[in-house]
Amino acid sequence: MKKNLRIYSTENLKKGKLTLNKKQSHYLKNVMRIELKDKISIFNEKDGEWFASIISIRKNECSILIEDFIKASDIFYDVWLLFAPIKQARLDYLSQKTCEMGVKKLFPIFTEYTQVKKINIDRIRSNLIEAAEQCDFNNIPEVSEAMNFNYILDNWDKFFEDRKVIFCDETSKSDVLEILNDQKNKVNSKWAIIVGPEGGFSDFERNNIENKNNSMSISLGPRVIRSDTAVVAILAIFQMIIGDWKK
Amino acid sequence: MKKNLRIYSTENLKKGKLTLNKKQSHYLKNVMRIELKDKISIFNEKDGEWFASIISIRKNECSILIEDFIKASDIFYDVWLLFAPIKQARLDYLSQKTCEMGVKKLFPIFTEYTQVKKINIDRIRSNLIEAAEQCDFNNIPEVSEAMNFNYILDNWDKFFEDRKVIFCDETSKSDVLEILNDQKNKVNSKWAIIVGPEGGFSDFERNNIENKNNSMSISLGPRVIRSDTAVVAILAIFQMIIGDWKK
Repeated sequence: MKKNLRIYSTENLKKGKLTLNKKQSHYLKNVMRIELKDKISIFNEKDGEWFASIISIRKNECSILIEDFIKASDIFYDVWLLFAPIKQARLDYLSQKTCEMGVKKLFPIFTEYTQVKKINIDRIRSNLIEAAEQCDFNNIPEVSEAMNFNYILDNWDKFFEDRKVIFCDETSKSDVLEILNDQKNKVNSKWAIIVGPEGGFSDFERNNIENKNNSMSISLGPRVIRSDTAVVAILAIFQMIIGDWKK
Repeated sequence: MKKNLRIYSTENLKKGKLTLNKKQSHYLKNVMRIELKDKISIFNEKDGEWFASIISIRKNECSILIEDFIKASDIFYDVWLLFAPIKQARLDYLSQKTCEMGVKKLFPIFTEYTQVKKINIDRIRSNLIEAAEQCDFNNIPEVSEAMNFNYILDNWDKFFEDRKVIFCDETSKSDVLEILNDQKNKVNSKWAIIVGPEGGFSDFERNNIENKNNSMSISLGPRVIRSDTAVVAILAIFQMIIGDWKK
């Protein structure tokens, strides 16, 4: 068996024969140089991960026989990430990282200072799938359509309900460790994290968020850090103190 | 003044005229489309950051007049990062991130499972400089020549002296928050963090490190995370609890 050859599938996964789609077949045949009888694993969010063996390789189509159940899908800690679109290479990176760091749902938001005006949701999803395939993870974060941040500000309670919101703001004077430590023993299992664009948030946005229910502003240290770095940094801290890194 | 146009220089910086090198001149003239009398800032680790104005633009050479001192160089918290070389795109990313996250010195190490066999130190340094230029930071982490990890294991006390070593090991059962919280009030200002290659450490390396003076193994959560992600994650946690993010 080729080491760690894992593919994501939107099909129902259960024992039996499955014909892979063109893209998957191309990847296995031409990129991974799969051979007849090789074993792979196949997974999705719903049916978990299964062992399968290659039973036919044609020009545009590979078939597999799904044989044994390996494990159920991973469960995400219920943390959302709201982030402003950034340039493509860094956005690809950001998307992959959210999978590694364990985010339940991604919300691209257009804030006042967001410079990138379009976002390719399919590409984000491809990056999430690639990260899950490579990082031995059987679940893919959901991705929302992009929305205007003003819409969220105007519909805060409806949007977040009783979800607590961590707002990463470079102007904040709060100590992130103190704030999250204070929260860790309270009964709350729904969270959202907001990370802004490279230019930060406008005063209007910042003041608005600070006056909302269940929002807490935190600072990510004294240096300027890029949005994609901030996402990994706050998720590491969040998962360690509140989320699913706790022993 | 073009917004945030900052360049790094190895020259002595003080009031007066300075002729920039070919690479810097090309960047200002052809990439940034600088014009006569435009203002930039110029910095290095030693002399801090200065305002300067463009006084001549020739084919391969720009000159500036250094005018006013802006601020001294940033001081790094004394934390080293030992990391195994990874593929180029991710290594570029890793290098940039270490600047944003505040590392004093980088040590590329070849461990037993390191798959990448060569490393371009000049390229790492270029990435560090680019990150410092863009992230408003006036200091560049040092970069050591690459070394064999066995050399470090064999010369541990000589190499680290009384420096405490955080060893990121995916097999560790330790709780990172507990371990670092326990350290945060102890008088110790020198630290090193070791992050391994994608394949992790060998049993030999792991057992060896665990028996060393001043080493502590920690786990970065239940998911597989890539080396470049691990670097940002552990540095965020370290700087927040022990390093220079503390208020």
